[in-house]
Amino acid sequence: MSGNVSMNLAENLVASIQHTRTAAIALAKLPTAAKNAALEAIAIALEQNSETILAANQKDVVAANAAQLPSALIARLKLDPSKLKSMVAGVRDVIRLADPIGDRQIHRELDAGLILERLSCPLGVIGVIFEARPDAVTQIAALGIKSGNGVILKGGSEAVNSCEAIAAVMREALEKLYENTEDASSHAVSPHVVQLLTTRAETLAILHMDKLIDLIIPRGSNQFVRYIQDNTNIPVLGHADGICHLYVDAAADLHKAVAIAVDSKTQYPAACNAIETLLVHNEIAPQYFPLALTAFQERGVKLLGCDRTQKIIDVLPAIESDWSTEYSDLILSIKIVDTLEEAIAHITTYGSKHTEAIVTENQTIADIFTSDVDAAGVYHNCSTRFADGFRYGFGAEVGISTNKMPPRGPVGLEGLVTYKYRLVGNGHIVADYAGTNAKAFTHRDV
Amino acid sequence: MSGNVSMNLAENLVASIQHTRTAAIALAKLPTAAKNAALEAIAIALEQNSETILAANQKDVVAANAAQLPSALIARLKLDPSKLKSMVAGVRDVIRLADPIGDRQIHRELDAGLILERLSCPLGVIGVIFEARPDAVTQIAALGIKSGNGVILKGGSEAVNSCEAIAAVMREALEKLYENTEDASSHAVSPHVVQLLTTRAETLAILHMDKLIDLIIPRGSNQFVRYIQDNTNIPVLGHADGICHLYVDAAADLHKAVAIAVDSKTQYPAACNAIETLLVHNEIAPQYFPLALTAFQERGVKLLGCDRTQKIIDVLPAIESDWSTEYSDLILSIKIVDTLEEAIAHITTYGSKHTEAIVTENQTIADIFTSDVDAAGVYHNCSTRFADGFRYGFGAEVGISTNKMPPRGPVGLEGLVTYKYRLVGNGHIVADYAGTNAKAFTHRDV
Repeated sequence: MSGNVSMNLAENLVASIQHTRTAAIALAKLPTAAKNAALEAIAIALEQNSETILAANQKDVVAANAAQLPSALIARLKLDPSKLKSMVAGVRDVIRLADPIGDRQIHRELDAGLILERLSCPLGVIGVIFEARPDAVTQIAALGIKSGNGVILKGGSEAVNSCEAIAAVMREALEKLYENTEDASSHAVSPHVVQLLTTRAETLAILHMDKLIDLIIPRGSNQFVRYIQDNTNIPVLGHADGICHLYVDAAADLHKAVAIAVDSKTQYPAACNAIETLLVHNEIAPQYFPLALTAFQERGVKLLGCDRTQKIIDVLPAIESDWSTEYSDLILSIKIVDTLEEAIAHITTYGSKHTEAIVTENQTIADIFTSDVDAAGVYHNCSTRFADGFRYGFGAEVGISTNKMPPRGPVGLEGLVTYKYRLVGNGHIVADYAGTNAKAFTHRDV
Repeated sequence: MSGNVSMNLAENLVASIQHTRTAAIALAKLPTAAKNAALEAIAIALEQNSETILAANQKDVVAANAAQLPSALIARLKLDPSKLKSMVAGVRDVIRLADPIGDRQIHRELDAGLILERLSCPLGVIGVIFEARPDAVTQIAALGIKSGNGVILKGGSEAVNSCEAIAAVMREALEKLYENTEDASSHAVSPHVVQLLTTRAETLAILHMDKLIDLIIPRGSNQFVRYIQDNTNIPVLGHADGICHLYVDAAADLHKAVAIAVDSKTQYPAACNAIETLLVHNEIAPQYFPLALTAFQERGVKLLGCDRTQKIIDVLPAIESDWSTEYSDLILSIKIVDTLEEAIAHITTYGSKHTEAIVTENQTIADIFTSDVDAAGVYHNCSTRFADGFRYGFGAEVGISTNKMPPRGPVGLEGLVTYKYRLVGNGHIVADYAGTNAKAFTHRDV
């Protein structure tokens, strides 16, 4: 029986995702104005239906409180009029972003009458699986629509009522606009471009739909992201670990080194761009440690140190596994190194290619660090917490990728786009460009 | 015993690839002139050692003939003075290509004194596994050096003597240049940046070295590429199938439709960008088929057709599996369709997102085709055989990717590059940009 049930689930799901895929093909061809009109309709509908959304969210919050879920989770889950207002503002921010589709990256005459273009185009359908954050629904949907992609959304189960209410409001707004648009199929965004999943079974099922889904963006715990990476053939954009380091060089300014270390660890300890390990050059450790210790103790940070650190300040011992642990909490491991090379080697061994920072007044040392460290972000004299799409000025982000291939780092609209080569001739064949009397290509950029 | 042997192999291999990785970190920082000097030294050495290389190649050719290998393979394997000359020219072509490293893609002030840059940088170490083509050794090595990447090469076993001779010549040239350069470690390309593997066991071993190798580029049979894709966590660039279609629309020019179909099938039938299936609109089939039949018969192409095709011309029946078969030979399957949408649906179902072409004089139809077909190349009124890095004017290619994410299509230097974000501040912390008295970002492009 359960086999039949899951068979039905899978069949229905395939049909409904196929529906989104078909809608996305039409979306790919819509002019910017039509996509922006859909986003504005969503923004207005969110404003008009704020009470419905807040009421649904209240149900989730009550359930979360009853289940005694962590207060940080409840804080992210809970909506209020001001948070809803910034969700609406976020959708309007995406309206203002440049349309990433149809950008002509290459325009080249290969020979007379044979013209090559490389054109940016949507990926197709994107599956985004995120935490119990209702505000992510509108943000990701807006980025999806603007980038011409269909979007399959799945939010954390604790936010299911909120996500359903928001998705329903968006869908109604798109339906109304679609119905009121003349020749809608080529002038309006189909309501099917955005689809919300609500069960774990559906999430697992879509991992196998590599013919229907072009990219999976998982956000959440390391374990969850790694599970997704290991269980799908669909390309995955994101990061499992966020093990970031700050290296305090011998030539560091002590004041900056304290402030940056404290900010990188404590400004939001659960963030992926918070540091887990502080590497300190032996020459500066005796002056730096007492200052840093005071600052960290004021903020309740538990410190763990290597043998040499323990000889200078009174901290608990760090063991081997600490160097590869993402605490996501007010805990910091500390290691003394003798050289820049040792610091870089430690980062190469234990880092997750996310964001790595150095504090130094020595420009040569800084240049070696930012060149030789392999990470999406390499920082000099500033906090690792700046690694974020909003702070980079991308308007919005779908996540942060620690992949080696682009897109990496904070990924905004641009990362939801690929390209295709369009070649237009007038009967051109390759035989004319081969052999003894081969014609030559002109290869002239237009 | 064999366990120990393979343990030793793996340990030695890890050490030697680590050596290449270390060399690649230095290579990443070299100025363009140093990389070009290395390439010129390789070009000269290839010229000076042509007899040694041709003698080694002769051994491979004798063995291949003795083993009665296919003549196409032997043709690709065999070097002669003119082929060697074009290998040298190919290396010098790469010298003339723009350096893809250090390109500043973003340069933005986030706030006063806090400057973000996005800089192109090498991937690290690339593993390229290719056919029995000695000329690929110099081409891939040149692209690797120019893009600042270490390269692990493995050629087809039939070319082992040729590949070893060429690799030795390149290595000696780099060694001599390195020894004769003052402060060589920061002014010359290390001879360790290029490494040749010669056994299958080594190839299999590197698939597991995801800490040491950043990208695998497999070239060869579908089966081989799929094996690589299924057996490594390292990103793979390439294509398994090359199932390309030509759609002859009702509004096609008959003359162009014949010439393009013949070229797309026969100009080099073993190529991945040759077509396997011809889709023909029912309205034009009665006029088109007799012309096409004659042209294909002249070139010895075996034709297989759907039921409706068989009613118009005398061809063998095509069965379901034909639509998903890459013949790589003078065989072509033909299907009649009633609409553009049916043609596109067939391509969506059976195509491999490589290169898809339409012949039509109707611009609207062409626009729908090139927009709605999801492939790296979408062509109008020209042969699919143009899908190639040289023909696109990229100077050289490492392969053709059918991935959805960039780089896709023919991949040249640009596809061997990633980027990192460098953020430089002067003690900047995120706490100053959060909360009630939050500073605003300026987000001003410099």
